[in-house]
Amino acid sequence: MKAVLFPGDRQVVVVDRPRPEPGPGEVVIKLRASAICRSDMSLYYGTPIVGGEATGTGQVVPGHEPAGEVVAVGSGVTSVAVGDRVAAYLAIGCGHCEWCQRGYNFLCPDWKCLGFDVDGGDADYLRLPAANCLPLPDQISFEVGAVMTDMIGTQYDAQRRLEVSGATNVAIFGLGPMGAAGVQIAKARGARVIALDILDSRLDLAKALGADEIVNSKTDDAVARVRDLTGGRGVEVAIDCSGSPAAQNAALDVATRFGRVAFIGESRATEINPSDQLIRKLLTVIGAWYFPIWEWADITRFVIEHRIPVEKLITHRFPLEQAAEAFRMFDQRQTEKAVFVWN
Amino acid sequence: MKAVLFPGDRQVVVVDRPRPEPGPGEVVIKLRASAICRSDMSLYYGTPIVGGEATGTGQVVPGHEPAGEVVAVGSGVTSVAVGDRVAAYLAIGCGHCEWCQRGYNFLCPDWKCLGFDVDGGDADYLRLPAANCLPLPDQISFEVGAVMTDMIGTQYDAQRRLEVSGATNVAIFGLGPMGAAGVQIAKARGARVIALDILDSRLDLAKALGADEIVNSKTDDAVARVRDLTGGRGVEVAIDCSGSPAAQNAALDVATRFGRVAFIGESRATEINPSDQLIRKLLTVIGAWYFPIWEWADITRFVIEHRIPVEKLITHRFPLEQAAEAFRMFDQRQTEKAVFVWN
Amino acid sequence: MKAVLFPGDRQVVVVDRPRPEPGPGEVVIKLRASAICRSDMSLYYGTPIVGGEATGTGQVVPGHEPAGEVVAVGSGVTSVAVGDRVAAYLAIGCGHCEWCQRGYNFLCPDWKCLGFDVDGGDADYLRLPAANCLPLPDQISFEVGAVMTDMIGTQYDAQRRLEVSGATNVAIFGLGPMGAAGVQIAKARGARVIALDILDSRLDLAKALGADEIVNSKTDDAVARVRDLTGGRGVEVAIDCSGSPAAQNAALDVATRFGRVAFIGESRATEINPSDQLIRKLLTVIGAWYFPIWEWADITRFVIEHRIPVEKLITHRFPLEQAAEAFRMFDQRQTEKAVFVWN
Amino acid sequence: MKAVLFPGDRQVVVVDRPRPEPGPGEVVIKLRASAICRSDMSLYYGTPIVGGEATGTGQVVPGHEPAGEVVAVGSGVTSVAVGDRVAAYLAIGCGHCEWCQRGYNFLCPDWKCLGFDVDGGDADYLRLPAANCLPLPDQISFEVGAVMTDMIGTQYDAQRRLEVSGATNVAIFGLGPMGAAGVQIAKARGARVIALDILDSRLDLAKALGADEIVNSKTDDAVARVRDLTGGRGVEVAIDCSGSPAAQNAALDVATRFGRVAFIGESRATEINPSDQLIRKLLTVIGAWYFPIWEWADITRFVIEHRIPVEKLITHRFPLEQAAEAFRMFDQRQTEKAVFVWN
Repeated sequence: MKAVLFPGDRQVVVVDRPRPEPGPGEVVIKLRASAICRSDMSLYYGTPIVGGEATGTGQVVPGHEPAGEVVAVGSGVTSVAVGDRVAAYLAIGCGHCEWCQRGYNFLCPDWKCLGFDVDGGDADYLRLPAANCLPLPDQISFEVGAVMTDMIGTQYDAQRRLEVSGATNVAIFGLGPMGAAGVQIAKARGARVIALDILDSRLDLAKALGADEIVNSKTDDAVARVRDLTGGRGVEVAIDCSGSPAAQNAALDVATRFGRVAFIGESRATEINPSDQLIRKLLTVIGAWYFPIWEWADITRFVIEHRIPVEKLITHRFPLEQAAEAFRMFDQRQTEKAVFVWN
Repeated sequence: MKAVLFPGDRQVVVVDRPRPEPGPGEVVIKLRASAICRSDMSLYYGTPIVGGEATGTGQVVPGHEPAGEVVAVGSGVTSVAVGDRVAAYLAIGCGHCEWCQRGYNFLCPDWKCLGFDVDGGDADYLRLPAANCLPLPDQISFEVGAVMTDMIGTQYDAQRRLEVSGATNVAIFGLGPMGAAGVQIAKARGARVIALDILDSRLDLAKALGADEIVNSKTDDAVARVRDLTGGRGVEVAIDCSGSPAAQNAALDVATRFGRVAFIGESRATEINPSDQLIRKLLTVIGAWYFPIWEWADITRFVIEHRIPVEKLITHRFPLEQAAEAFRMFDQRQTEKAVFVWN
Repeated sequence: MKAVLFPGDRQVVVVDRPRPEPGPGEVVIKLRASAICRSDMSLYYGTPIVGGEATGTGQVVPGHEPAGEVVAVGSGVTSVAVGDRVAAYLAIGCGHCEWCQRGYNFLCPDWKCLGFDVDGGDADYLRLPAANCLPLPDQISFEVGAVMTDMIGTQYDAQRRLEVSGATNVAIFGLGPMGAAGVQIAKARGARVIALDILDSRLDLAKALGADEIVNSKTDDAVARVRDLTGGRGVEVAIDCSGSPAAQNAALDVATRFGRVAFIGESRATEINPSDQLIRKLLTVIGAWYFPIWEWADITRFVIEHRIPVEKLITHRFPLEQAAEAFRMFDQRQTEKAVFVWN
Repeated sequence: MKAVLFPGDRQVVVVDRPRPEPGPGEVVIKLRASAICRSDMSLYYGTPIVGGEATGTGQVVPGHEPAGEVVAVGSGVTSVAVGDRVAAYLAIGCGHCEWCQRGYNFLCPDWKCLGFDVDGGDADYLRLPAANCLPLPDQISFEVGAVMTDMIGTQYDAQRRLEVSGATNVAIFGLGPMGAAGVQIAKARGARVIALDILDSRLDLAKALGADEIVNSKTDDAVARVRDLTGGRGVEVAIDCSGSPAAQNAALDVATRFGRVAFIGESRATEINPSDQLIRKLLTVIGAWYFPIWEWADITRFVIEHRIPVEKLITHRFPLEQAAEAFRMFDQRQTEKAVFVWN
């Protein structure tokens, strides 16, 4: 089968590999879609941000947002059958620690990340524990299923924790695929959404996805504008999807008293003002990341019921053979969400 | 009557002022205790951190943690009577905005802070809205009542929001009066407490107040030590009372997955690592400050029922005449909690 | 002025009374709308369910959902001015107990209920504490403001506590004005709504107000139907507005595991099955009633922002002179929400 | 091996059965303790309240609170090893539905209950899925481990949901083993505990376990007494462990405004007063039952850290051969917690 590898910094090759066989409790999936994510760039540069013991050698197949059809099941597998349409839950846990028991495999001290620690979905076939199969109802296409496993899932879980509803004003900072997914989820939960970015193209997409207000935070004063749009009060919920310290600070600043703020975008050094941003306003800030596996049932019901057009997040589709081109364009931000697809 | 004023940077005078009369809805209190707080130092330096339009002139009497006896009531006052023992709720709100209606006067956009914006308790008499009187049961002395209005109240509210109980490991950073009060509250709520500071004298006090473990974070690696004391797991709750960016970061680091962290100590510039500290651990951080006025009933019941020895936080007592000495010693950290007392 | 009184069981008179004058801290309101509520029937029958020391004499003017214009203010009133458009918060508390301090006057041990314990709004003029004035923005008519003070407020608060959002299926039992208001709030919060009643006319209204599904629980098996409409799963939230034990039990039965159920409709004797309804499903049941006064700001923002057509709940309008006819028709269920109006 | 069976109403036999062998993913445990539970009585009478397809034949071995040592492991088992000390989690779920993924196997639509649907622990050996093994630290004896799997676990989870802490007054109704365990947990969480029963012997035990107040609800007016003991206010939390409708109603009555009440004791018909008990007080009532499997780690840490003397709940120990006597005495309430033990 064909599989992508990153032999060195910004190098992409498509190699031939033996098709995997399922071990006990495992399945093999014929890929139909595999989405590229911003975190893939860390692998592409040779500096993986998750797991990664093996990745230095460039021998691990990337791709942690895959979907396809089960074509083989190993011994003892009863929850999935050949022919099932599935997406993959990226976190492979030990299965018996308290975090795995809660369904938060990605908090397991010994977890392995698909596409970082073990071979992922940028290949014709994928070997996966049956327990990591996320059922795809017929109403959800493979490419939408792939995209749902990361951004939609992360936003769904974050906004559940933030208690976003029709009674909430939500400000979303950073309108790449993660932020755009946030707009979709917030609108479907009933909220009024103020979407902020520095690129007009992204603001236009957010508007098309239902954002009530858009603010270009490059040409406009983001904090003043959000205050203005909320009668001076600020928002009950702010979500940073950019990882930019400036946006993270703006998210803290636009939140009203008792407000809730989520940090989703990655950043390793952000200066904040605890007194003015947190203490004076009795603010709550949460870190949000991925979703517990049991939430998939809720997420699929939600997407179907609200007919959320997740496919609108996808701007580019590539065959696996054009992997080099796909990663180059994604890296240079010439695409928003990009997906490898198979017929 | 005698009253304290700060005419200039680190200058303290005790002046004669006319004894105040109560207006409609107001009372006058004969002071019996008035505690000095770290935030008083901002006034002492001439750089008030709260309210403060009038304070530039040095004409406002400081003291926002007072307690005493009602000696006069204005027209329309029915909730308090002459002879009542009371402490003062420091936040004077507009009374009709949504935050005042919730009992969070200190979130009112137009609030005035006792001892910053209006004359406070470092004087023989205090004029106060009747609505700001906090009843003092007989079991609570005036000096304990004074101390309860700030540190005990703030800790009580923070730990309620943090859901501290006997099932919680709590790490408390910074063991000045605020942190020491936190140890008392956490123990009375049933928690296991790890107390951290850089001064052995404060660690000794924390131990005497019931801390299960003490860690000198100057001579020891605070994060490693807390992990060690919790079987490698970290704590469910961490509370920073120091305002030191290093301690705030340690608080974030020692919290386990889904942990809750409160920032109480004041800081206006702290660099954090959102990815590792918040996002990867699904952490929650809250800003905590003071308490809603309705919580006073809970707080007094709690202190009485658990027989919390709040007086142990007080290391120095002064007559008002020695105000200059008192503020100098407090500023130079030669005291922990210091209180002006009247016989 | 004209005022309604209930001299005996099902007797209604419109009498002449002196126009009230405002005392200190009070206002007088020229009524423009005053809504009839199911709980008025308890007065109408001479068996008041709230307060009621004075009501036995039939000398208290009913009407606890009034709105109008301030025409006089007493001494010390600063939060409201002559000419202000206001509705009335029905619970007059002591003002200084912990429940009043929280803004839950109706939990005050000494509260008085407008229209039960003190003269209410079924009169040309109403005397009211200034603290009980709920500001009416220009976008909200007097009759909508009157209706908002009870059913919309109660539903808003209940659904906030139930965390209703776009991720929630909500079943609402009983589609009188309270249930119909529940449909409006749930839809504006983003939920999918299943509305149940035994009257087709009420089901039609619910449908017109946005209910996704309607079920006639007289001709259909309510529990089976709701299960069916949720893929066998049941609803996350059920709200009983009927007070009928059968409907309350159905609400408990249709809730899924971890479901949340609110009882709003009044009932004093309902047999439930704790083992099967609560324990096996880890269910949560809450009692819901009215709203804290601080929530009015949220409620009005919510109604305006979502353009909720509250007026659709009103089926009949009467001049005060026709009070006898109005109460008779309401009692005989010939109206849904009925409102006295003044030009 | 020896195993208990219930061939008919109140009939107990100890039979010879082949020692089980572990299948794939299973273990076999040499029993060291197996506790008798009130729900066993439903089997003893031939009217099982859980699962029970097979139980009509009397061919299923009872015992759903067992602990022992692993003596054999089947293929694919990596989380447990021969020699491990374990207790058993009674709910065997499908393993892949959303409720199993959350760790709430007992909410799985297809779950099997140990000792009801599949052979339980009243035998020399027990076959169990490895996933259902609960690790027993050395500090916890087998008999304590057995008891912890049900009453301690249920109380721990209920009181976590009820947010019991040192700031809570808790009233516990019914002081059999479940209620007595509730006293232990509530005290260790820091609460003030009022314990109620109709038997002085149980009240004495509760007192010995740390209850602050005891009330004989046969000779005393329970509701009045609890109000009295809380300054007229009532308790923040009430827990019914009796299943008696009278006690359930008293639990609702003694709860204060915003109070939380848990129903743990089984009852299939209880008349309540929604208006006065739930609605007027904005009460919350939850059904509580067992615990999610991930909580075992917290529960064991909690028991060890607080040195909870769980063994004090056990009044009688029997060898398996005396099963008939044991069940008879338990049924006739001549024992509190009774445990089969093996040397």
